[in-house]
Amino acid sequence: MTADRDATRAGETTLHLPPAGDAQLRFIGTIRTPFQRREACPRQGREDGPECRLELLPELAAGLDGIEAFDRVEVLYWLHRARRDLLTQSPKSDGCTRGTFALRSPLRPNPIGTSVVKLVRRDGPSLIVRGLDCLDGTPLLDLKPVRCAYSVQAPPKPSDKVG
Amino acid sequence: MTADRDATRAGETTLHLPPAGDAQLRFIGTIRTPFQRREACPRQGREDGPECRLELLPELAAGLDGIEAFDRVEVLYWLHRARRDLLTQSPKSDGCTRGTFALRSPLRPNPIGTSVVKLVRRDGPSLIVRGLDCLDGTPLLDLKPVRCAYSVQAPPKPSDKVG
Repeated sequence: MTADRDATRAGETTLHLPPAGDAQLRFIGTIRTPFQRREACPRQGREDGPECRLELLPELAAGLDGIEAFDRVEVLYWLHRARRDLLTQSPKSDGCTRGTFALRSPLRPNPIGTSVVKLVRRDGPSLIVRGLDCLDGTPLLDLKPVRCAYSVQAPPKPSDKVG
Repeated sequence: MTADRDATRAGETTLHLPPAGDAQLRFIGTIRTPFQRREACPRQGREDGPECRLELLPELAAGLDGIEAFDRVEVLYWLHRARRDLLTQSPKSDGCTRGTFALRSPLRPNPIGTSVVKLVRRDGPSLIVRGLDCLDGTPLLDLKPVRCAYSVQAPPKPSDKVG
């Protein structure tokens, strides 16, 4: 694990924690974007941004079957360059110190990024999408239809209270 | 890890994978909901649903500082009862077989749930929220402001294309 930056800013606090070990992840593929350095990443992906490629491991391709029915997909990925011990942070943009959980900074105890992207097309075990802001080579963790698209398809179950 | 259900349905496929080990998670707390069994969980949380409690580890409380500024928070949690080897699935609701990544089923290679919840109030190292649908006792992974609320606050950086 390479730290994104090693120095803390004034007012930032870190936490000494034992090694992470409560649950384990298995990378399901790799994200290909045009962004080779952190400074090149937009702060937020845009649906008119460049096409990016979600490359699943070939043996997982069948897991995509049916995804073409959705316009938008939620993507979860592992922010592999992020340090994990910052409890409070001072974003460069404003210098105010806030808690890590009040920020969307990649630096967090479990550095999982989430984005909702526009699905352009499927290409075998890969999806072409727009709207990502992460580094090229970011490990992929999960893909799922966005909830609003999903809820249209699902019939109610008894535990769904209908208002 | 207890499987939510051990039997597969017609047409479902599983994958034999080595143990997960690409990255490790550290649980940051526990989610308290009124839902004690999977059948009691609504399919989707509602903002007029019951109050739930996100209990952070006390040593992480400072990580919440500033979160009161947001109405809505994205919650990531570990679906600890879910099997991880289903590549295609047949939801009980419609019996059609689809790829795991075309479903929001809890059964997935990396069983991470995401929800956007309404923040009711902070109570020390805990947040009271509405809109969850997960089991009581679910391990908490991460909290962050929802992206739309965040983007209002952040000034543009050079790599943000402005349309």
